[in-house]
Amino acid sequence: MTAPLIITPGDPAGIGPEIALKALLSDDTLRASCVLMGEVSHLRNVAASCEVEPRFHSWTPGAPLLSAAINLLEVAWPAPVIAGQPDPKNAPLIIHAIEMATSLALQGHISGIVTCPIAKSNLYEAGFPYPGHTEYLGALSGDKTAIMMLANKALRVVPATIHIPLSKVGESLTKQGLCDLIINVTQALWHDFNVAEPKIAICGLNPHAGENGTIGTEETEIIIPAIKMAESNIGDKAQIIGPLAADSLFHAENLAAFDCVVGMYHDQALIPIKTIDFHGSVNITLGLDFVRTSPDHGTAFDIAGKNLARPESLINALYFAQDMARNRFALASSD
Amino acid sequence: MTAPLIITPGDPAGIGPEIALKALLSDDTLRASCVLMGEVSHLRNVAASCEVEPRFHSWTPGAPLLSAAINLLEVAWPAPVIAGQPDPKNAPLIIHAIEMATSLALQGHISGIVTCPIAKSNLYEAGFPYPGHTEYLGALSGDKTAIMMLANKALRVVPATIHIPLSKVGESLTKQGLCDLIINVTQALWHDFNVAEPKIAICGLNPHAGENGTIGTEETEIIIPAIKMAESNIGDKAQIIGPLAADSLFHAENLAAFDCVVGMYHDQALIPIKTIDFHGSVNITLGLDFVRTSPDHGTAFDIAGKNLARPESLINALYFAQDMARNRFALASSD
Repeated sequence: MTAPLIITPGDPAGIGPEIALKALLSDDTLRASCVLMGEVSHLRNVAASCEVEPRFHSWTPGAPLLSAAINLLEVAWPAPVIAGQPDPKNAPLIIHAIEMATSLALQGHISGIVTCPIAKSNLYEAGFPYPGHTEYLGALSGDKTAIMMLANKALRVVPATIHIPLSKVGESLTKQGLCDLIINVTQALWHDFNVAEPKIAICGLNPHAGENGTIGTEETEIIIPAIKMAESNIGDKAQIIGPLAADSLFHAENLAAFDCVVGMYHDQALIPIKTIDFHGSVNITLGLDFVRTSPDHGTAFDIAGKNLARPESLINALYFAQDMARNRFALASSD
Repeated sequence: MTAPLIITPGDPAGIGPEIALKALLSDDTLRASCVLMGEVSHLRNVAASCEVEPRFHSWTPGAPLLSAAINLLEVAWPAPVIAGQPDPKNAPLIIHAIEMATSLALQGHISGIVTCPIAKSNLYEAGFPYPGHTEYLGALSGDKTAIMMLANKALRVVPATIHIPLSKVGESLTKQGLCDLIINVTQALWHDFNVAEPKIAICGLNPHAGENGTIGTEETEIIIPAIKMAESNIGDKAQIIGPLAADSLFHAENLAAFDCVVGMYHDQALIPIKTIDFHGSVNITLGLDFVRTSPDHGTAFDIAGKNLARPESLINALYFAQDMARNRFALASSD
């Protein structure tokens, strides 16, 4: 049996604690397999604002979970938490909670981490030097190359570049970098998603995937060579198909045909997945020593404390983390 | 009452004639309001491959339509048409058919043109100097600025740039060009689509619309000033909203809120619309003296003559053209 998942609080002034309570109250099997990090008194206030009165059970690493309650790894916020008002005094504990979750995972007490949203600007003031969770977890996991995947029930996508200006995307792509990414994605599909012979679509960068070099040259100079390099490394246990015109790629027939799509930039990968399922899409970090997922939205301070936040994305993040943890556990057990 | 629409044949070796027959046989009201350009003997062959035997009626400009038949403006192909095998000998007539349709439209015999797909490479050999229908029709219509819109039942999108390399998109955008585009789109929403007070969303170019200039500067330097210029021209009979993060823009709530989305580049506009409805999306040319729409796919030589082509996009193109022609007619009648 796999160890429980842990849900980190993120910024407690955001919607994280609210969607965590809603998620764990929505599904007995999730409640029986997840630990929430949080402060009892604060969570009781959140629960009151949602008109629920959950039972909490204090959990310590290694102890069994109580399925009738919300299992809590307790923390104590330095400053009172006010919904919608992030407090820099709480920033160090927001960061420390991520570290605690990581070390519990690396020790095997936890099979995966599901992170609630943080507000980067609040953490920067506390000296947090990372663009976000993904890079921080990569560093905590021994400088692994952390790869961002977005997934929902219909589609998995991986953007090859993320938060860079659009005009810099072409020059940021390299044959080796793209080849490594394709290999890492293939391994994740094998190991985390239990897809024996994955089919992976690679987007072109330019309109119509460059139309044989007449609309941009990155396809012929970078993407096609990278695909060939990756193919020779991977062998015949995966199909790498592309570069394909991205505009025609995301209709239903193709979604059924491909296990993952690698896009060349942020919007090329994120537009289709959020268009297909805005509230149910999940952020997944590949390449770490532990499973990590998160809801695909921010702290939403504007609606925090108002019982308006929707838990679908967190619920899906928990389901994805469970599946990935089980696949990793089965693989480790069979070795 | 509005004049009929005309359907140009495009490349007769492609799926154009097949989808035209299927569209006109699918709907009595379309058949009663559309003229097809084509050759009777060729169309009888196409009909036979689709296992139908339609009745054809020879139409001449100004004459009434026969609703029980497919009304045909007859042409004679110089070379025999073989499905799937484009013949350069037919290229001059493919081009001339577009010219004929245009002059019928400018003379008022026709209320709009719906074009079946052409194969640009076949036409280039005949000296056709345009990237496609859109630019050619702009030239035929007195050098109007022809604007490409894609539309389906859920969404209208206009890309500000089209077939250029992705790395050139940023430098291709100008304040004046984008301002003019927004104004032209607004006028089309008023006049062609009868939207009294349109709401138009403008995408950012960069991830998260540049996050206040931290991920690229085109939003602050070009897009925001262009929106302000357009707003001061348009006044309060339209709302121009943006720049907005494109990845979060195309979910159902937003689709209901906006009458059109202006994207900055090909895939940013075309990925969402083709993801939402791949077979039903339609290409519309705004800014001409006449209505023009087309199906949003190519000649599909590989499936021509096999009774495999789907007519949905052409059917929608005909419905869109009908609506636009009626709106223009109503506007002209009320002047």
